[in-house]
Amino acid sequence: MMLPLNPALGATFRPPVMEARRWLEGVSFPPDRPLINVSQAAPVDPPPEGLRRAIAEASLEQAQAHLYGPVLGNGELREAVAAEWTRAYGGTVAPENVAITQGCNQAFCAAIATLAGSGDEVIIPVPWYFNHKMWLDMQGVTAVPLACGQGMVPDAEAAAALISDRTRAIVLVSPNNPSGAEYPAETLRAFFDLARDRGIALVVDETYRDFDSRDGAPHNLFADPDWGDTLIQLYSFSKAYRLTGHRVGALIASAARLVEVEKFLDTVAICPSQLGQIGAVWGMRNLGDWLTGERAEILRRRAAMTEAMTRLAGWRLKGCGAYFAWAEHPFAESSAQLAPRLVREAGVLLLPGTMFMPAGDPAGPRHVRIAFANADAAGIGALADRLAAIR
Amino acid sequence: MMLPLNPALGATFRPPVMEARRWLEGVSFPPDRPLINVSQAAPVDPPPEGLRRAIAEASLEQAQAHLYGPVLGNGELREAVAAEWTRAYGGTVAPENVAITQGCNQAFCAAIATLAGSGDEVIIPVPWYFNHKMWLDMQGVTAVPLACGQGMVPDAEAAAALISDRTRAIVLVSPNNPSGAEYPAETLRAFFDLARDRGIALVVDETYRDFDSRDGAPHNLFADPDWGDTLIQLYSFSKAYRLTGHRVGALIASAARLVEVEKFLDTVAICPSQLGQIGAVWGMRNLGDWLTGERAEILRRRAAMTEAMTRLAGWRLKGCGAYFAWAEHPFAESSAQLAPRLVREAGVLLLPGTMFMPAGDPAGPRHVRIAFANADAAGIGALADRLAAIR
Repeated sequence: MMLPLNPALGATFRPPVMEARRWLEGVSFPPDRPLINVSQAAPVDPPPEGLRRAIAEASLEQAQAHLYGPVLGNGELREAVAAEWTRAYGGTVAPENVAITQGCNQAFCAAIATLAGSGDEVIIPVPWYFNHKMWLDMQGVTAVPLACGQGMVPDAEAAAALISDRTRAIVLVSPNNPSGAEYPAETLRAFFDLARDRGIALVVDETYRDFDSRDGAPHNLFADPDWGDTLIQLYSFSKAYRLTGHRVGALIASAARLVEVEKFLDTVAICPSQLGQIGAVWGMRNLGDWLTGERAEILRRRAAMTEAMTRLAGWRLKGCGAYFAWAEHPFAESSAQLAPRLVREAGVLLLPGTMFMPAGDPAGPRHVRIAFANADAAGIGALADRLAAIR
Repeated sequence: MMLPLNPALGATFRPPVMEARRWLEGVSFPPDRPLINVSQAAPVDPPPEGLRRAIAEASLEQAQAHLYGPVLGNGELREAVAAEWTRAYGGTVAPENVAITQGCNQAFCAAIATLAGSGDEVIIPVPWYFNHKMWLDMQGVTAVPLACGQGMVPDAEAAAALISDRTRAIVLVSPNNPSGAEYPAETLRAFFDLARDRGIALVVDETYRDFDSRDGAPHNLFADPDWGDTLIQLYSFSKAYRLTGHRVGALIASAARLVEVEKFLDTVAICPSQLGQIGAVWGMRNLGDWLTGERAEILRRRAAMTEAMTRLAGWRLKGCGAYFAWAEHPFAESSAQLAPRLVREAGVLLLPGTMFMPAGDPAGPRHVRIAFANADAAGIGALADRLAAIR
């Protein structure tokens, strides 16, 4: 018997990545045909040696690296983010607009916590990022699904029709997880204008901004002097600098909203990891060129993924960018059955579309997400060969 | 203008420790009379060199130290906690009962998230730990205050009278923050029996267990084979091994409840910091003797604090243990005014009782919390001298 259970938490689903890992139990993969794991958007190699050494030296030499820091993060990192954002987005972002979080998931939780409570509504495009849906569920906030149009891009006019008097925010992820879509600047502007007009917030999760295929800023929303009245932006240091195990993300918002964010972070986190922050600062200062190379490699993999899909009979690539491909499969069975079968028969671990959709959405069973960024071009070729052999 | 604000978050207070730090702004402390900061329960020295080196070596040599790990924490640390708990508490705690969290605050948030949602009630003794109150507030959960009796210990019978059909849990902190009280084993047993009888949970936060003045286990609740139906225990590695800047805590509960905890942690954290976990494992394996010495030093400081208070005219020590003294002051003004005045006039930073109480409770203005563990015996003497000089 388990004692009281919060029904809102009980009703949400279990972590998809952990569920997918359970499909591996009892399955063996021969040495000449190892598992191809394209289930999670996660670097498989550690950060460059310089960064690892910077963390090691801080551990040995800086007492402060082991002790509490400010709730909203260290001034050094907040200042570095503000300077880089001001440069990159052609707007004004001050250190007082930047909060450092224990990963970007936590930044999302903090943002929503300031906006919406039980009974409120938040609009999110489908397919959605599952942890966003889980947080809304467990907070008793209704996730209102917004269908995506051509190229997996949502439409602001369609969103307008979904706004009710309980709507508190619209959440966009660009480049998108799971679809890989890079939202055009005009799309983001249209959503920003809609949110401002209707007095709700626009939350834009740019976890994958460093791997956007477009040069220059993906939008100019920070150039609006009043951006902080409407926009909350989220970012992750995990992908750019391979710091997933350190949990460092950021939330960019008005100083007034950060007063509320600080309440949440103090309660859930007290402060972000000091060593993670030290790694992130070191990365921002020293890994610019390296990151340019990382981006180029991801874009090569994206091209390899796109090319590989054209050879896959019956499959249709619906979106591809950042770390992800979103593809329609040719099988009669649901992706929920297909995905565990691919582990057994193809030695491939990917996530079914059903993990990114409401239960009733017919697109979920027909699609899969492939986190291709973890595979090199040869690995992507092998992945396509294995998928082609499945009947 | 700030756009939508979640009223539940808006209604809770700002982080007390950060508010207290703002009292320091514009105040200068002469070199021969530096600030005595007894506001936060935080080590001021880094962990021992061996632990710092273990973290440094992991950063340099273990790729996995920088990458995602399991949501509920690394097996190595979960196993170490399970083995030590089974030994220390004379009960059975398995690795499947242990979740590692980004600090003990997050363990509390996770525990409550599994138990209670908006409109539910949780009983907490007053004075309370402010971050507990903040989480309940922002989740829309009503904190039902339970007055403490003699020695700052709450009474299970008094709690029974507060249980309604919306009550989901009782939360106890022992040794207590802010009062320092060490709850007798019979008290914990009485609360456990009450919770079990009424079908609610008992959450026991033992962040300060390593500094309990009593030898042996502080309770035998884990010896009950069905403890997991009622008990959720919280722990922090921060104090024992001086890892506050790494954010590592633990939640011990039934395996069934950890399924729900995993949903919350996946969404808010993805995983705890790898380096923090490596430090915690190293500490558990290598710092047993060192921790014994740390505890002895804290107990000496506790004795010094108790002795110092007897010399302070008009002050009354209400509780003293772990890191904290809870004291009644002799001044007519509220502690909310007294505390910032002590910064300016005494060079002492402590927290007012009002930060640990409902607004209307008359005890808040009359008390202060002194986190004495950060001061050595000489520092505690100086603290008492400075307080004695205030009129």
